[in-house]
Formats: sequence, structure tokens, C-alpha cells
Amino acid sequence: MSDWELCWLPRENAQAEFTVRPEGFDESDGAAVLTSAVSELKSFGSFPADSCIVIQRDTKLPPESYAWDGSRMLLTASDPRGALYGVFHLLREQKLQNGAVTSFGPCVPANPLRMLNHWDNMDGSIERGYAGRSFFFENGRILNGDRIRDYARLVASVGINAVVINNVNVRGDATWLISDRYYDDLTALSDTLASYGVRLFMSLNYAACMDIGGLPVADPEDEAVQAWWKEKMREVFARIPNLGGFLVKADSEGRPGPFTYGRTQAQGANMLAEAVRPYGGIIIWRCFVYNCQQDWRDRKTDRACAGYDNFIGTDGDYADNVILQIKNGPMDFQIREPVSPLFGGLKKTNTMLEVQIAQEYTGQQIDVCYLIPLFKEVLAFHTTAPDGEDDTVAQIISGKGKAHQTNPGMCGMAAVSNMGNDANWTGGDLAQANLYGFGRLSFDPSLSSEYIAKEWLGLTYPKEAETVLLPILMHSREVYEKYTVPLGIGWMVRPETHYGPSVDGYEYDRWGTYHRADLKGVGVDRTAAGTGYAAQYGKVWQEIFEDPGRCPEELLLFFHRVLYTDRLQSGKTLIQHIYDTHFEGYAAVEESIRQIETLSDVLDPVVYGRIRERLDRQLRNAREWCDQVNSYFFRKSGIADGQGRPIY
Amino acid sequence: MSDWELCWLPRENAQAEFTVRPEGFDESDGAAVLTSAVSELKSFGSFPADSCIVIQRDTKLPPESYAWDGSRMLLTASDPRGALYGVFHLLREQKLQNGAVTSFGPCVPANPLRMLNHWDNMDGSIERGYAGRSFFFENGRILNGDRIRDYARLVASVGINAVVINNVNVRGDATWLISDRYYDDLTALSDTLASYGVRLFMSLNYAACMDIGGLPVADPEDEAVQAWWKEKMREVFARIPNLGGFLVKADSEGRPGPFTYGRTQAQGANMLAEAVRPYGGIIIWRCFVYNCQQDWRDRKTDRACAGYDNFIGTDGDYADNVILQIKNGPMDFQIREPVSPLFGGLKKTNTMLEVQIAQEYTGQQIDVCYLIPLFKEVLAFHTTAPDGEDDTVAQIISGKGKAHQTNPGMCGMAAVSNMGNDANWTGGDLAQANLYGFGRLSFDPSLSSEYIAKEWLGLTYPKEAETVLLPILMHSREVYEKYTVPLGIGWMVRPETHYGPSVDGYEYDRWGTYHRADLKGVGVDRTAAGTGYAAQYGKVWQEIFEDPGRCPEELLLFFHRVLYTDRLQSGKTLIQHIYDTHFEGYAAVEESIRQIETLSDVLDPVVYGRIRERLDRQLRNAREWCDQVNSYFFRKSGIADGQGRPIY
Repeated sequence: MSDWELCWLPRENAQAEFTVRPEGFDESDGAAVLTSAVSELKSFGSFPADSCIVIQRDTKLPPESYAWDGSRMLLTASDPRGALYGVFHLLREQKLQNGAVTSFGPCVPANPLRMLNHWDNMDGSIERGYAGRSFFFENGRILNGDRIRDYARLVASVGINAVVINNVNVRGDATWLISDRYYDDLTALSDTLASYGVRLFMSLNYAACMDIGGLPVADPEDEAVQAWWKEKMREVFARIPNLGGFLVKADSEGRPGPFTYGRTQAQGANMLAEAVRPYGGIIIWRCFVYNCQQDWRDRKTDRACAGYDNFIGTDGDYADNVILQIKNGPMDFQIREPVSPLFGGLKKTNTMLEVQIAQEYTGQQIDVCYLIPLFKEVLAFHTTAPDGEDDTVAQIISGKGKAHQTNPGMCGMAAVSNMGNDANWTGGDLAQANLYGFGRLSFDPSLSSEYIAKEWLGLTYPKEAETVLLPILMHSREVYEKYTVPLGIGWMVRPETHYGPSVDGYEYDRWGTYHRADLKGVGVDRTAAGTGYAAQYGKVWQEIFEDPGRCPEELLLFFHRVLYTDRLQSGKTLIQHIYDTHFEGYAAVEESIRQIETLSDVLDPVVYGRIRERLDRQLRNAREWCDQVNSYFFRKSGIADGQGRPIY
Repeated sequence: MSDWELCWLPRENAQAEFTVRPEGFDESDGAAVLTSAVSELKSFGSFPADSCIVIQRDTKLPPESYAWDGSRMLLTASDPRGALYGVFHLLREQKLQNGAVTSFGPCVPANPLRMLNHWDNMDGSIERGYAGRSFFFENGRILNGDRIRDYARLVASVGINAVVINNVNVRGDATWLISDRYYDDLTALSDTLASYGVRLFMSLNYAACMDIGGLPVADPEDEAVQAWWKEKMREVFARIPNLGGFLVKADSEGRPGPFTYGRTQAQGANMLAEAVRPYGGIIIWRCFVYNCQQDWRDRKTDRACAGYDNFIGTDGDYADNVILQIKNGPMDFQIREPVSPLFGGLKKTNTMLEVQIAQEYTGQQIDVCYLIPLFKEVLAFHTTAPDGEDDTVAQIISGKGKAHQTNPGMCGMAAVSNMGNDANWTGGDLAQANLYGFGRLSFDPSLSSEYIAKEWLGLTYPKEAETVLLPILMHSREVYEKYTVPLGIGWMVRPETHYGPSVDGYEYDRWGTYHRADLKGVGVDRTAAGTGYAAQYGKVWQEIFEDPGRCPEELLLFFHRVLYTDRLQSGKTLIQHIYDTHFEGYAAVEESIRQIETLSDVLDPVVYGRIRERLDRQLRNAREWCDQVNSYFFRKSGIADGQGRPIY
């Protein structure tokens, strides 16, 4: 018995009196993955006694794909990974359909890369981790074993095929991951992951050539720097044969980078890309570059502009094994942001979408916040015009954009992980839905949020729980938004922790995150008359965003300064909208608790207890948000709530 | 050569061709202190060749006292400690008078206890420490040696006679200071300190009987608890013979205490006092007890009331070897607070004044803030009426109050230390003035702030520096107040660090520290119509504080809610006063820098560089305070600055 739970994975081993026979696979290619596929099916499948399930290779299928012929009990698969995903699909359907599984497929993953980014530190802590300590690291050592194997099973079961195991802020011991200290342990870890088709990536310290190489600079145009990295990567890939490549956070929040030497981001990325190219390695370069020493007095500089400004000029300059990883919005994983204009802007550059399931700013796995609807909105965003024929984010980051060139396989989706050493892996039980959902969505972005939620619930909880939990999940993002930050303005969180309200917490600070509230109104003017951010979208979107009457109302305060007395589409004034939504959000959490309590005899007592306890914390959090935001705006505006509810 | 500096101590050893002869002291009593006195005089004194300085015991003098007869070159002293203080006095005057020292004395210390409280942790960190790491502790070990010896010399030279070496928040290793682990090292440390007349005290974990004693409770009425402490103290005083006693923070900010068991603070203190009584030990019990889980919505509960409310009912209940240690104000070492009403209120209880030279909320030894004027105000406070004949705080805490009973010797002053392992001991060089000044003032509260500052400057810097540094010191508190928190309202600092502004940083938090600003005005109503705090002072003061026209204006917002458009005594509106003082405070720091720059060739370059660098940081801090406070109130009030200066 392990100390951890297996979430949505099948829990009971059937009396397996059937056989599983792979056909057509050759030994050299992913034998361990095929073994896992066979073993999972054999251990958890449920088929008539003496039947034989054939897993047959079909080279006509695209990579990682599969199909199931229910009448012939035949799973066809492009390759071992396809077989594994097919097996997990089959096991899911067996549970959900409660018996014989009708045919499905062919199922082809939309995104070549479906990644998790872990922000785990080698001391075992996790930056913005809300589910316990790291299961990859402890006291500077690399862990391996059953927990890692179950981790690989969990993430593979939803189609994830790559993981970055260490924090993008690479410091201390983690700089030495590319040294003899850790090669053997990394190779062992890589093998465990690879047996479930999960490829190991690492975050890289861009200044490693200085910190461990002893060079005086990290200038990407310096020949000694280039030579050091080439030699280092020769060594790294010799010692960790299946390594996929590296994720790099450079020139960001105090991390060193090419800007230090007057070089472009492309020069920095390409230097590393050349070094890993001989080994099939890729460099994933984060676009989270902005000035974190901003002066709050300065109303022209806009952090929202930074990603685009720093990267758009290098479009087309990147090596074919470089991918730019772009956060969904221009700020930082807020509950509501416009989609980053870089997706539409970059035409000749490999790109990946970065989302965050860690809920750093969206409740920290305490507050229920099912994020798949947010991710769906991002994927569905038409980059040129709302009703355009042109490329959506989903098309672009899956390599299917018409107006966007991508090198084959060099694109996809990454999520900042919400996993840790807690028994349930994600702290809050309902936060598992984001892990599950991210994997499923990155494999098949056409799935609806509701479909995914139902699937996860069906696999994880007794059937009766769905009627309660499904609406809680489906409303959770809207509820969280209601009691927190109004109309896209963002932030208002406690500095440092990022949990709980502090309306002015960042208002006079250096982080570029301001709401500019005064006694008359609130919001940031990002039109041409203001910071000019809206122009990064091109003409059609710019006109929409710049017109307060056409701007999507949920983003109104992101793009406009609005008076408290201005009317919204509902006919309410802004101030009344703020009051109402905050009271509504709080009431909705109260209602969720009432609903959840009907499940006290339905759910496992441990699971129920954990969910209930988190909801209590969410309710307290919602109370603080509601009262602080309302009181803040009441004290500033002096305008009383139309309904006379308590404001302090 | 040591790695640290010796501040105001004499720097050069004279060619000592004179002799020093003690007379009338017996060997048993403080021989080490007398040896130190002789050695200091011999090493650093300057007298004619072949002369003989006699240090003669005079049992008619009160304890720790001395007098100098310049014509006879005779130092008379009550005891070895008196001799040591006399020697340091003589050495000071030799430097200041540059030669032969005229007669002085008899000099008698006003306060029996003149203490430093170090908030040092055993890992070597210092809570609210701004001058480097601890010199008492490192990695759970106790340090000793030359640095401690020079520490003892430094503090003894200004008359300090007792120190608490560890943080009042006693956790982890520090709980075990009263165990065999540390007895030998503590005794050695105690001996080093004692050789300069400095008595060792420690902070105690009130729950030690549970944490190391294994008892299930810490109830002071529990016989097993009482027995454990008696046995423990028998052991402690047997192993550390010269230990003075203990400082206790109980029932405060998460520390355990008697309230946990429904007992009074007196019951808790007395239980410990009985245990240390047989060994002449004393218990110093802090009055910093308040609810740190307050609801910001609640406008009736007032943290300012807590100290008085929690202790006044136990007046007279304390054992004669218990001292209540009371912070100067009812809140927590803000730049401006009224004097704690407990001083006047407690009539039959030994009390000590606690001040803080660590500058936690007053610039953290970066910003210049000479605190002696603040301490003088507190000492001069007449506790019943401003023009009363009745007891001042100085009288009460020195045991000379007419209406306040004190057991002999059971009173005095304590300062939270500003010292650490930095070369100059106090981080900012000018922060030394607070250490020096606290010692001198606690010995002789009649000295003026200016006298003390001049004395320190004369001992520490070249004579030409005085004309620049003296006014900077003398104005520094007013300057700091101007650019930070207006009219006694307090706080507005960044939570956690307590440095730099965050106007709403504590406004919606649980710490009981609110300014209640809205679009009309700011301030807390502490009259009978509000929280009722003013009534804790008795009738005369209550009437003064409750009348906005008579309330000392520098405390106006502490006691009253005031509209931005209300006029102050200056004729200015409150809002204009806020704007003006903030711009003035910033300008004064600029001017300080201009002034200091004239000393670039006068001061030692290292010292000059450090002072200059701190002033640059102070200027940046003042800029942030000025702009954030002004912008905050401008955004709330909408009232423009009358002089049109930049507000954001």
C-alpha cells in the first residue's frame, strides 16, 4: 500500500483471465512504453474470460494515435505511446460505460508537446506549490521510485508526454543538474518517466557558464560561451540519453539573460539551440520578460506591453528547435486577462501556450476554480478578429495555423503544475480536475469543459456526486471572479503570498500591476490615449478593445478607466456592480457548502473532509475579499450600496 | 586587530607612566569588575608621568556611584561597578576636555536596572535586527571571546548593567537554554559580561515545562508545573551562579501564557517568581499582551486598550521580585504615540519602561532617527495631569514615584537592542547615538538630548563634524515623522518588513492597527464616543485627549477622526498639512545629504561611505513615503495640493 491516492486511475485489479497481445511493434522503439500499456490493460481491464485483446501497430496513424474496434477487441496504435494512450482511453470508457466499450477513434493528439512545468526546488520546496513538498527533490537529492512511477502513470493517463522537473528560477543546486553530480540519478528518473512515454526536460540557468563554468560572461555571441555550452550539452546528452531539452527563463525577475549583453532573446535562445541540436534537443524559451523595477508613478510604461515589445521584433530569428512559451495573457495568470497578443503577432516562430493549473492567483488549490473554461476561451481566441476565418490560438500552438509557420512538432501546451507530495497530489481534491482537464484538453482541445469535468467526476467519484459537483466546478471560475477582482483589472492580492485580498497591495510597488483607483473611478487606460497596449492586437481587435461600448465587459477595467457612476450593460453603475458581484460571489460559496454537505454520505469520508475543510477556507477567503473590496471602494467613492448591505 | 570598531570608546593607548591604586575594596565583591576598571584607566587614561590615581571605596555612596576629585586625582566609588563607571566617565571627560579633568560627582545612577533586550535567535538571526547577525549565537551554539568582551566594555561604558541575550519569542533551541546543553557556555558568557558589571538575563519560554519538561499543561496553579519550575530553577541557578533572572513574553502574538488556563498574568508571573526567589532572581514580565486576531471590521475593539485592560486589574497582585516591563506607548514603538496609561495606572506594582533602539518602525538603522528626544518625552510625562505635581514616568520607573510603590531595585529601563555583528555594531553609524544615548539616559535621565548627542559626537568623530551632525541628529525624529505617518496615527508600513510605506498595509488585517481613512477624513476616534481608550488616563488627561482643540496636535489622528478640510492650529487644512509635511520631510533628507557631503574630508572614509550610503537609502525611502502617502490621500480626497507639487 502506498501513502498516496490514485485519483482517477482505476482502483481495483480485475480478475484478469484474458490475454493481451501486442502485434507489429519492434523491440527497439519504446519497448518499455509498450510493456506499460500491456501491463495497465492486463491489470485494470475487464474483459470476458479467455478473450484476447490485440494491440496492433498501424503505421498509417499519425504519431501517438490509436483507435479501438470494439467488435474485434482490437486496439490499433501508431506506436507504443499511442498504444498506451489507447489503453488508458479504453480503461476510462470501461469505467464510464460500465462494461463493454464501443468503438472509438482514430484519436490523434492535437498538440505535439503536452507538458507540465514543475516549479520544484532541489531543497524540496515548490515555488507557488500548494500541495505539499516536491516528489522530485529532497535536500538537494533526486528522488525516484513508486511515487514517481505513479506520477508518470497519472500524467500519461491524460496524455501528457513531457515534463520539466525543476523550477524555472534555477539557483543553487539546480544549476548543477547539468553536472556529474546528478547525471546518474537523472537518467534513472528519466527511465521511470519514459516507461510511461513521458519525456524529461529541465529548466536551465542561463548563466550556468558563469556559475559552474567559471566564464566571466554569458554573452551568447562570445565564442567561449558558445564553446562551453556545446561541450556541456555533448556531455549532458551523452549521460542522459533521453533528455528532451530545456526550458529557459532569461532576463526575467532577476534572472540573467542575453539582454544583459545587449543581445536579443533570439541570440540567447539560438546559442543554446545550436548546442542541443546534435542530440535532437529543443530549447523552450519563456516570453515572460518585463521590467520588474517599474515606477508606479509612471503611467505610460505598461507591463502588459512587455512580452510583445520584447519578442515581436525577433519573429523569424529563432532556430528551428527553439519554441517560445507564451503565457495565456499579457500579465500573469490572473482570473481574467485578454489573450496575449504575441500569439497572433508572431508569424514565423514556434510557439507554445503556457497556462497555470497551480492556481497561484486563482485560489491556490484551496478555493475551487476549475480553469478549463478559461483555457478553452484562450484556445478559441481568433487572433485577428472575433469572427475571423483566421488562426485561433488553438490552431497556432498546435502547428495548424494558416498564417503562422511552425516547425513540425515544435509547439503545444504547457501547464505550471499543481502537484506535490500531498496524498491526493493536488492539495484540494477538486483541483485534480485542472490536472486531469489540462491533460485531456491538450490532447483534444475540441472537448468541452463540461465533458471533461463529467469524465473526471465519473472516474473519480460515485455517480451520485456528479449532480452536486458538476455545477460547482462549472460555476467556480465565475464565482471566484465575482468575489475577487472586478472586470479584468487583476491583482489586488497580498504581495508575497498572492492569496487573499490587498486592494492596494501592489498599487505603489514596482511590479507594473496597478488599478489606479481614486475617488472617481478605477481602471487602466490601455487605448491609444493611454498606454497603447490595445494596438498590439492589430486593427480590428484594437478598435473593439478601445471602444468601451464594444470592449468585452469582463475586460472593461483592463482596457479603460471607468467612473463609479458609469453604467454597465446591465444598467447598473460600476460601483453597484462591484458591490453586487462581491456579495453574489460570497453567497455562491455559501451555497456550494450547502450543496457539498449533501454528499457527506456519498463521498469517501477522508475525501469529503478534505473538500469540506477547503470550502470553509474558501468561504473565509471570499468573506475577506468581499468585505475588503467593497469597503475599499466604498471608502474611496463614498457611494452607498443600493441594497444597504454591510460595508465597513 | 579585531574586525570590529570600538565606537566611542577611547582608541589609542597612552604611554601609561602613571599608576592606578585601588583602596578599600575587598576581594570577594566584584574583583573582576575592579580589575576591569583599573585596566581601562591604565590602558586609556592620560595622566602625568609618575602620578598615582587612587580609586577609593566610599561606602557612604549609593550603589554603583562615584565621584572624581580632580585636584587630588581621587576617584571615590561605592563599589567596583561604581569604580568602573567612574573610570569611563573620567576617560570621556579626558577626551572631551582634552586634558586634565575637573572634579565631578557624586554621580548616582537614577535607575537600578539599565538593560538591553537582545532579540537574538540561536540560529544567529536577530528578530528585527538591522546590524548583521547575532554575536551571541551561531548555529545553535553560544559564542564568547573578544567580541563579547568588547560588547561588555561598550555597554558598560554608558552604564548598562544587565542584558537579556535571547529573543523574547523563545522557540526551538532557545527553550533549551535552561538545560544541561548550555549551562557551561552560559556560565562562561556570564563571566565575560560580569567582568564589566553586566548581569546576564535570559528570555524564558513560558511553556518550557511542557516543551522540555514533558508536562501536559503550563497552568501556573498546577502543582506539578510549580514543582517543575522550582526544581528547574534550582538547577539553573546552581549551574549559572550569577544569572539575574528572566524576561517573559507570555500570552502574546502566539506565545503561550497563563490566559490559556484561565489564570491572570500575575498568577503566571508569581509562579515563576517563587521559583527564582531563593536565588535572588527576578522575573521581568512584558505587558505586550493584545489580541492579534482582531477583526478589522470591528471599530469598538482597540488594541491600544489591551495593555491596560489586561494588567490594571492585577495591580498589587505581583510578587516583590516581579517587574512589569511596559512599552513606552500603547501600540508598538511607532514614531509618535501617547505614553502608555499603565505607568500612571499601576500603583502597587514594580514597573520598567521598555523602549526600542532597534528602530523597527523608525527607519531600521538606515534612516537617521535619534530617539533620545522621544524617550525624554516619555520620561517627562506627568501621569495624572500635564502640569501636575504628581509622578512622571521617570520617577515611577526609577522607584521614586510618590503615588507609586516599588520594591527596592525592582525597576528601571530596558531598550530593545540595535546591535549586531556589523563592524560598527549598529548598521548605520548614526544609530550608535541611540545605543549610547539610551545607556546615558537610563543612568541619568536629567541629561538633555542635545547634551548626550554632543557628548557622543565629541567622543566618536572629529570636532569639526559636530556642527553638521548635531543638527541632523536633533532634527531627525521630526524629519522621519514628517515624511512618514502623520499626527500619531501610526503604522502605514509594509507588513512583514516594517520598512517603507504601505498606507493600507495593515488596514484590513488582524493586527488592530487601523487609520480608517475614507474620502472625507482619517483617524481613529478614541474618545468615549469611540473606543474609549482616552479614559484609561484618568480625568484630566482624558478631557485633554478627548478635546480636539486641546489634544496635543502631534497625536490628533491617534485620538480623533479628522476631516481633510478641518483646520489645524497652523491654519492649514489637514490635507494640506499632510502634503506639506511630506514634501518638507523629503527636502530635509536632501538637505542632510548636502550637509553630510561637507564632511567627506573630515570623517574616516569608511565611516563617511557608510553614512552616505545609508542616507541615499533614506532619501529613496523618504521619496516613497512622501509620494505614496500624498498620492494615497490625494486619490482618496480628490483635493489638490495648494502648491501644485507632483502627486500621483
